Amino acid sequence: MTTTHHEIAIEKFGAAHTLSFRDRAATAPGPGEVAVDVKYSGVNFADVQMRLGFYPDAPKKPFVPGYEISGVVAEVGAGVTAVKPGDAVVAGTYFGGYASRVTVPATQVFPLPRNATLETGAALPVNYFTAQLALHDMARVRAGDKVLIECATGGVGVLATQMARHAGCEVVGLTTSPHKKPFIEALGAIAYTRDELYADESVRGFDLIINSSGGVHINRQRARLGLTGRMVCLGMSSGVKDGRRNFARIAIAALRTPRISVLKLFDANTGIYALNALHVLRDPVWVERMTRSLVAVDELDLRPHVGKVFDAREAGAAHAFLETKQATGKVLLAW
Amino acid sequence: MTTTHHEIAIEKFGAAHTLSFRDRAATAPGPGEVAVDVKYSGVNFADVQMRLGFYPDAPKKPFVPGYEISGVVAEVGAGVTAVKPGDAVVAGTYFGGYASRVTVPATQVFPLPRNATLETGAALPVNYFTAQLALHDMARVRAGDKVLIECATGGVGVLATQMARHAGCEVVGLTTSPHKKPFIEALGAIAYTRDELYADESVRGFDLIINSSGGVHINRQRARLGLTGRMVCLGMSSGVKDGRRNFARIAIAALRTPRISVLKLFDANTGIYALNALHVLRDPVWVERMTRSLVAVDELDLRPHVGKVFDAREAGAAHAFLETKQATGKVLLAW
Repeated sequence: MTTTHHEIAIEKFGAAHTLSFRDRAATAPGPGEVAVDVKYSGVNFADVQMRLGFYPDAPKKPFVPGYEISGVVAEVGAGVTAVKPGDAVVAGTYFGGYASRVTVPATQVFPLPRNATLETGAALPVNYFTAQLALHDMARVRAGDKVLIECATGGVGVLATQMARHAGCEVVGLTTSPHKKPFIEALGAIAYTRDELYADESVRGFDLIINSSGGVHINRQRARLGLTGRMVCLGMSSGVKDGRRNFARIAIAALRTPRISVLKLFDANTGIYALNALHVLRDPVWVERMTRSLVAVDELDLRPHVGKVFDAREAGAAHAFLETKQATGKVLLAW
Repeated sequence: MTTTHHEIAIEKFGAAHTLSFRDRAATAPGPGEVAVDVKYSGVNFADVQMRLGFYPDAPKKPFVPGYEISGVVAEVGAGVTAVKPGDAVVAGTYFGGYASRVTVPATQVFPLPRNATLETGAALPVNYFTAQLALHDMARVRAGDKVLIECATGGVGVLATQMARHAGCEVVGLTTSPHKKPFIEALGAIAYTRDELYADESVRGFDLIINSSGGVHINRQRARLGLTGRMVCLGMSSGVKDGRRNFARIAIAALRTPRISVLKLFDANTGIYALNALHVLRDPVWVERMTRSLVAVDELDLRPHVGKVFDAREAGAAHAFLETKQATGKVLLAW
C-alpha cells in the first residue's frame, strides 16, 4: 500500500501564509528508529522565529520545522522493543515535526502518558522539557520556595506552575492580560498582571523567577529576587509582534537584553541562568534523560492546556494566532 | 572584678603593621545578648581588604574588624537560655571580632560543636556559612554532581570540598601550588593545579564551579560548565598581592571581571551567581538560619583546617601571612 504523506515546509522567510504544504515520500525506519503516524504536531514560538528567519539554529531552507508530535506507531526498526505498531506515543522531533509521518530514534519516543490524550500529548514535550530543565535542572526548586512565573498562562508557564506547586512551592503567576488571572488562580497560584507586580514593591523575596519576556524585564524582575535567589530566562517574547519580521523590534529587544556585571552580582547575592531548551535537546544524553522524565507526567497528573487546534493545512493561521499573544495554552496542528 | 579587655582596631588604612592594639572597656550584655571571653578570632581576607581601605561595607574608621570568634560565655543578658556562663561557643560577630571580649545577640552564638576544639571552632563561622550558602542555598548541589572547587586548600575550599563529598558529589579541587595537591586528594577530591586544568580541555562538564579568583578566570572556568551547570563566584582574590594597597592591581582585577551577556548565556545554557556571604549575614533572618545550620558540622564531621595561629598582639603578622597566599587553611588570632 502506498500512502501519501504530507509536510509543512519553510521554503522562504516571511509572513505566516508563506508556509508551504507539500507531499512527502514515506521512509522506512532504520535500526533503532520508530515511524509514527502523526495525529498532532505542536507549534512553538521558535517555529515562528524560524519562519521569520531569525532563529540561528534552524536548518537551511527549505526545511520542515516542528519539535514534537503525538500519534500512533506505524512501524519500528530493528532492535526497537519499547514500543510496537499501534502504540499511542509522544515524541520529540527536533525539526521535522510538521508532518503526517515522522521517523525518529526510539530514545525520542515515549508511550502516551495514561492521563494524556493524543491532543494533550502533543502539547507535552517542548513545554514539559523546558519547565523541567528550568525548575529542576537549573533552579533546582525545593518545597517552600517562593516562585514567580512570567507568562503563567503560556504552554511552559502552565506546566511550570503545576510542577512548582507539586514541588511544594508558593507560586505567583504573571500575565499581561488581566482576564487571564482566574485561569492562573485555578492552577493554585497567586495571580498578578505584570503591571500590578511592577507597581507593588512589596512583592519580592523570590527564590526563583522564570522570566520569559527578556529585554528590560530581566533587570526589573531580578530586583525582586531574595538573597541567594535565581532567575531563569527562557527567551525574548518581547522581540516579535504581529508576525512581522520586524528587525527594528528584534534589535531593540536584543539591545535591551542586559549584560550582567558580576561585580554588581556580588551586591545582589543572586544568580541568573538562560535556558534554550532546544539547544540542550541537541545533546542525545539530555534527550534520553528528558524523554525518561516524562514518567512524572502521570505521577504529577500534569494536564497541559491545549489552546487551539488547527487543521494542518491551516498552519499559517496557527502561526498567526500564536503571534497575537492572545493564545492561552498550546497551539496544535491536526493531521 | 575589673578586667581589662583588648581589641585590634583599624584606625587608618595601610600596611599590616598599622593595625592598632588597644584597651577596651567591658560592656554588660543587654537583653538577649551574650558576652563571650574570646579565645580565638578568625582572620578573613575581607579584613585585609578593609585594612587596605577598599571594602565598601566596612564601618567608618576607627573600627574593630573581625567576623567570628570562639570562646567561653562570660555572662548572658535577660532572656538568654540557649547558653550559660562557662559554655564553650562559636559566634559570628559581623565586625568587632578582633577583641578579647565580645557581646553579641544570642542568635549569633552556637554551642561549640562536639567534634570542634576552640581552635577549629573559630575557623568555622565565615567559611562554613560561605560554603553552605554557595553549595546548598545558591547552587543546591545534589548527589552525582561534578563539582570544581577553586582554592580548594583555602578556608572555604576545605569545608566546601568536605561538604560536597558528603553530599555525594564528585569533586575536583584546584590549587595554584602543585605541592598542595596531596592535601586536596586527602579530602577525597581529584587535584589539579589551575594551569593543569586550563591545559587539559577534557576536564569539563561540571554541574558546579566555585570560583574564588574572579577576573579573567570567571570566563575561562565557565567554559568548563556542563549544560544547565552553574558557577558561584566568591570573590576576587586576584585583586590583592603582597599586602600593598595596590590600586592599579585592584582596578585591573575589577576591569577584568566580566559582564555576562544574557544573550550569550542562552547559548551556554548555564547560570552564574556571585556570593558575598558577609552581605547575606547582615540579614538577621539569614544569620539565625546559618547559625542553626552549624548542627551539620557534627553530622558531617567537618574538620576545618587551621593553618596558623598568631598571638593577638601579632595581628599585623597574621595579615601579612594571609596576604602571601601561602596560607593553607584558616589564620587565627589567639587571646
